[in-house]
Amino acid sequence: MRLAIDVMGGDNAPDAVLRGCIDALELLDDADRLVLVGPRELIAEYIDELAKGDPRIEIEHAPDVIAMHDSAAASVRSKVNSSIVRMARLGAGKDGTPCDAVLSAGNTGACVSAGIMHMKRLPGVHRPGICVTIPAFQGPIVLCDAGANPEPRASHLWQYAVMAEVVARRSLGLDKPRVAIMNIGAEESKGSDLVKQAAELIKATPDMNYIGYVEGRDFFAGAADVIITDGFVGNTVLKMAEGLAKSLFEAIATEIFEQDPNLALQFEPIVKQIYAKNDYHEHGGAPLLGVNGVMMIAHGSSKAKTIRAAIRNTRDYVNAGVNQAIEARLSQVADLEKRQREHA
Amino acid sequence: MRLAIDVMGGDNAPDAVLRGCIDALELLDDADRLVLVGPRELIAEYIDELAKGDPRIEIEHAPDVIAMHDSAAASVRSKVNSSIVRMARLGAGKDGTPCDAVLSAGNTGACVSAGIMHMKRLPGVHRPGICVTIPAFQGPIVLCDAGANPEPRASHLWQYAVMAEVVARRSLGLDKPRVAIMNIGAEESKGSDLVKQAAELIKATPDMNYIGYVEGRDFFAGAADVIITDGFVGNTVLKMAEGLAKSLFEAIATEIFEQDPNLALQFEPIVKQIYAKNDYHEHGGAPLLGVNGVMMIAHGSSKAKTIRAAIRNTRDYVNAGVNQAIEARLSQVADLEKRQREHA
Repeated sequence: MRLAIDVMGGDNAPDAVLRGCIDALELLDDADRLVLVGPRELIAEYIDELAKGDPRIEIEHAPDVIAMHDSAAASVRSKVNSSIVRMARLGAGKDGTPCDAVLSAGNTGACVSAGIMHMKRLPGVHRPGICVTIPAFQGPIVLCDAGANPEPRASHLWQYAVMAEVVARRSLGLDKPRVAIMNIGAEESKGSDLVKQAAELIKATPDMNYIGYVEGRDFFAGAADVIITDGFVGNTVLKMAEGLAKSLFEAIATEIFEQDPNLALQFEPIVKQIYAKNDYHEHGGAPLLGVNGVMMIAHGSSKAKTIRAAIRNTRDYVNAGVNQAIEARLSQVADLEKRQREHA
Repeated sequence: MRLAIDVMGGDNAPDAVLRGCIDALELLDDADRLVLVGPRELIAEYIDELAKGDPRIEIEHAPDVIAMHDSAAASVRSKVNSSIVRMARLGAGKDGTPCDAVLSAGNTGACVSAGIMHMKRLPGVHRPGICVTIPAFQGPIVLCDAGANPEPRASHLWQYAVMAEVVARRSLGLDKPRVAIMNIGAEESKGSDLVKQAAELIKATPDMNYIGYVEGRDFFAGAADVIITDGFVGNTVLKMAEGLAKSLFEAIATEIFEQDPNLALQFEPIVKQIYAKNDYHEHGGAPLLGVNGVMMIAHGSSKAKTIRAAIRNTRDYVNAGVNQAIEARLSQVADLEKRQREHA
């Protein structure tokens, strides 16, 4: 695998990203390559110190940076020498040796824009969506879209279902993943027009194990393997779950400490155990489904171990041929939306 | 206070509702009245057994029931003798002695429809919204809309901000409640057009302590006192928080039990303590803001203690004159939306 990595992306860049790359080397084969995209001197200095002479590391010079708060589309157009744009161009095969995949923990909107602009979309895909695998208590949940497309149309949601279902089969090895749409009621009559139209399309898709609507309360209860929603809801739900889990652990810790400080010591390893089982830093890297290539987006607060896990996950994703499987599946069902429209 | 209560509403009706009403009697004054709306014989039998002769209880006969899965608007039109419709008519002063407030744990959509149809809207209000007070770790959060209006326009969100801010001042006693809009990024450039347009209106509202956007991760971190969002996101977020908290406690309990069963015994009272502090059953009853009167909607899974708390909260809400304050505030800012539109 040849993987281009945005060294300047994320709240803890460049240190956490570079450290994560070095730590990932032990997972890689001799033929694998990590192309570190960012300011050459900064990267070279770091590599000289920690991985000097390792032939698996290459540097792609990108002097410019798109910051976390920069406007997405505008900065991708204007900052052509930013690490995100240079990375996307490597993924598109536009500069030098083409890369099999790209990875960034940087500005999500800019990654999506750069992916669409330079790597282009798979045939027939209207709008790419971010597909996050969430470590939940009953098993992993595949959520799409997690924030690329806050105001989708029904056909976008339908394509997310088609693509994310492939991810659940190929990446998680599920046989017939249960696909559901997020809604504000479980009954067919409930919800917005968007959700109802998307449901019709997904229901009509051959070889799709569509199980209907799930509500917020079912999300973490293992009601579905694949959950489809718009980018606004997906992003909000993801971030809220993170925040709530953190607040809840803090509340428990405070309460324990007030009642019995000794108990707090006993409780600590248990919390660590739960964190380890459900640590999103171990699930780093969410594919942007629908671009023509593999773009992996990592959490903005990625630590070195998140990047290391994301590199491992990206390699597995590339080796499992997920993107090729998505492309094949899309072409299989391509005329469904058109037929539905004619039928309506 | 004269309060009409839908005896047949909710997953645990009629038992939990009737029990909750009886349990609430000790909180009420001699002049207060609970008008129990539902099948007369069923109610009479229950009352004869547990509160015979208490003059504070009256019965309003409603032989029909709107079920939790019934279609909202259609059932309100067709089931004119249902407990929800009869209740709303009492709230509107259309039958017998007018009630100061109505309360139901039944079909939320049907309550909203019946409220709009019979109690009508406050002058200028386009679409009523459900305003939930969430017991969070850093203090209560007022969320609107929690599910009445899944596809609002910007002017609806603006009115939710105006009305929910009054609730935070009057009900929670906050001096200058911090009002925020839920978005998928904290920067002004982020989010949907809906959110941006609503932000412009709220920002331009006099005497409004608008603090900008909050993201999902800030929700439980005490970043704002009042959070405005569409009914789809609001409902999803609420239900997800419930589900996640439950799953998390279960995960902790399982982990503790696996590691040290004795520790589990020590942990139990601590969990109970946290539950008690953040128990939504104690916060029963969310006002439907924007109807001309007080309609309180309780959680579908309300237990007797939820109904008891909802009756107490409704009395406090009525006594604090929240609805009158909302009406006054709405007329104060009524022309803002029009002026903004002309200005644009």
